[in-house]
Amino acid sequence: MRTQIAAPENFEAEVVIKAVDVTLEGFLESKKNVAEQSGMGHLLKLFAEFLADGKRIRPVLTVLGWQAAGGYEDSDSVVRVAAALEMFHAFALIHDDIMDESDIRRGRPTLHRALAEEEGPDRSEHFGVSAALLLGDLAFTWSDELLHTADLTPRQFRAVLPLVTEMRSEVMFGQYLDLRATGELTDDVDATMTVNRYKTAKYTVERPLHIGAALAGAGPEVMDAYSAYAIPLGEAFQLRDDLLGVYGDVGDTGKSRLDDLRAGKNTTLVALALRACDAARAARLRALIGDPNLEEAGAAEVRDVFAATGAREAVEHMIDDRYRQALQALDAAPFAAGATTALKHLARTATRRNS
Amino acid sequence: MRTQIAAPENFEAEVVIKAVDVTLEGFLESKKNVAEQSGMGHLLKLFAEFLADGKRIRPVLTVLGWQAAGGYEDSDSVVRVAAALEMFHAFALIHDDIMDESDIRRGRPTLHRALAEEEGPDRSEHFGVSAALLLGDLAFTWSDELLHTADLTPRQFRAVLPLVTEMRSEVMFGQYLDLRATGELTDDVDATMTVNRYKTAKYTVERPLHIGAALAGAGPEVMDAYSAYAIPLGEAFQLRDDLLGVYGDVGDTGKSRLDDLRAGKNTTLVALALRACDAARAARLRALIGDPNLEEAGAAEVRDVFAATGAREAVEHMIDDRYRQALQALDAAPFAAGATTALKHLARTATRRNS
Repeated sequence: MRTQIAAPENFEAEVVIKAVDVTLEGFLESKKNVAEQSGMGHLLKLFAEFLADGKRIRPVLTVLGWQAAGGYEDSDSVVRVAAALEMFHAFALIHDDIMDESDIRRGRPTLHRALAEEEGPDRSEHFGVSAALLLGDLAFTWSDELLHTADLTPRQFRAVLPLVTEMRSEVMFGQYLDLRATGELTDDVDATMTVNRYKTAKYTVERPLHIGAALAGAGPEVMDAYSAYAIPLGEAFQLRDDLLGVYGDVGDTGKSRLDDLRAGKNTTLVALALRACDAARAARLRALIGDPNLEEAGAAEVRDVFAATGAREAVEHMIDDRYRQALQALDAAPFAAGATTALKHLARTATRRNS
Repeated sequence: MRTQIAAPENFEAEVVIKAVDVTLEGFLESKKNVAEQSGMGHLLKLFAEFLADGKRIRPVLTVLGWQAAGGYEDSDSVVRVAAALEMFHAFALIHDDIMDESDIRRGRPTLHRALAEEEGPDRSEHFGVSAALLLGDLAFTWSDELLHTADLTPRQFRAVLPLVTEMRSEVMFGQYLDLRATGELTDDVDATMTVNRYKTAKYTVERPLHIGAALAGAGPEVMDAYSAYAIPLGEAFQLRDDLLGVYGDVGDTGKSRLDDLRAGKNTTLVALALRACDAARAARLRALIGDPNLEEAGAAEVRDVFAATGAREAVEHMIDDRYRQALQALDAAPFAAGATTALKHLARTATRRNS
């Protein structure tokens, strides 16, 4: 199948999403036989549903990064690399949910919960975790397979592989920083922004753009221009995510708005509130955030402190500042006008979204 | 550094092991700075110790597979690919230990236990599992990085990558079969041998030989000859492992000989015993195997049943048969005489080992 990706001035995310969906569905279809032989047919079905629900942010950025850097030929290869990033993200989310002990993702039970439940009461929770762990590992392997079979030229391969390695290492280092911080609340706002940078800004925005650009043969000037746009935008994206984790509607986000609080996520929002609190209120926040049994009443109390300390408003300001920085970076960037318009639009939706 | 790998008639596993060790140490050294920046310096140290303890079976087979298929130039690239397989194996073991809830590996606490303990009592067991899960994911990423930086020709790359993907997928499918079987004992000997084939015969023996051969540009005839040797040998290797899991000395194996029994590992040994038992004894075996609190007295009782049913002896016979098949396959193989000698020697040590 050859994909028709329009020129950058007519960039439509929907077209990319559709092409990536088709690629991923075809790939999973090719795994059906061997999965059924290993009694994994059911797992593959669950995984396909999980994968179908993704927002495809990274693939869209990959294709846009390729186009804005002048790419126009052989879009099938680019779409397949983009699909590899989405597959890698599925791996990352599955393992993330195990580490966070999350119950809900994308409006459904997380994979480790679903796998434990469907096996019936004779199977322990540990079975669900083990099967999900393994399914995540398979997704990692499949992400590599998609990449290796993207029919890249040796030159594209050499340009892309180091960036893929960087992207993977960065998100794992970020995850580890996050893991250590979780449950140990701090008012160190900078520390929370470091996690944000590794876990989100680089992983979700900068590296997909870089990978797309590398496929188009872009040089260091273009790469730097992407970084100048991507880092503030990615930070803003994560800050929005932090707010949605506490204020979002489960119908929009697909995640319970108690999960982050129960898990004791050490977000920038929390650090700002702790910094602005008196000792009594800080102690109360520390008691509520990280309590695995926190209910809506406790969450409402936390939200009151976020409002009273101005933490919520401060995060909104941080998002605005970064949104503006990203737009400014585009003004100076060596991209085609059409691509700049698409990147501006994307910056807006990434920071103003409610899901 | 250039490695001097002797011609196949003088093949010495020790030389390969040393070269792989140097490659892995250098690689981890290059990760030190970024790991310390993320507060992972301590994890990296633990991981380096873990990695240093490996037996390097897969790297030795990779280099031997390359030599026996006529490879002789640019052994540095081959050693780096071999090191990538060892790194991948570290990933597989770390995740395996999480799934099996094992306490000891290679004579030390498993990584998830060590990580939980060293963090002190305020950190839960879950922290140890999460950090180990992440460290395993990093090892997977690093295995790719070693492979991508092995300076392979485009032709070698194209030949090796599909085999690496196959190897990874096979071990994961095997792991899943094993996971499903664990705790649900069966007398289906064939089912246990299917797990054996995926988890060990293909992963540990066949694919490393194939990958080495692919680096030397080998054709299908050579690949088939390796399979004919590798599958029976790999099966025998796993059967030996099953025996060592129950009869081995922790001083030799580095593993408690209660772990497999406590975890309810559904080995061929267990299936043979269940098949030969009367109902009362079978019920007793099912009560003992899989009991997480099993002590040495219970294990001794299990061993008595393995002896009385002839299951232990039957496994020894299966090992012998497969050892002979592997040797016969070598007689018909198109390898240099020196390489055949080395492969024969390897077959002997893999099936007669006590660790």
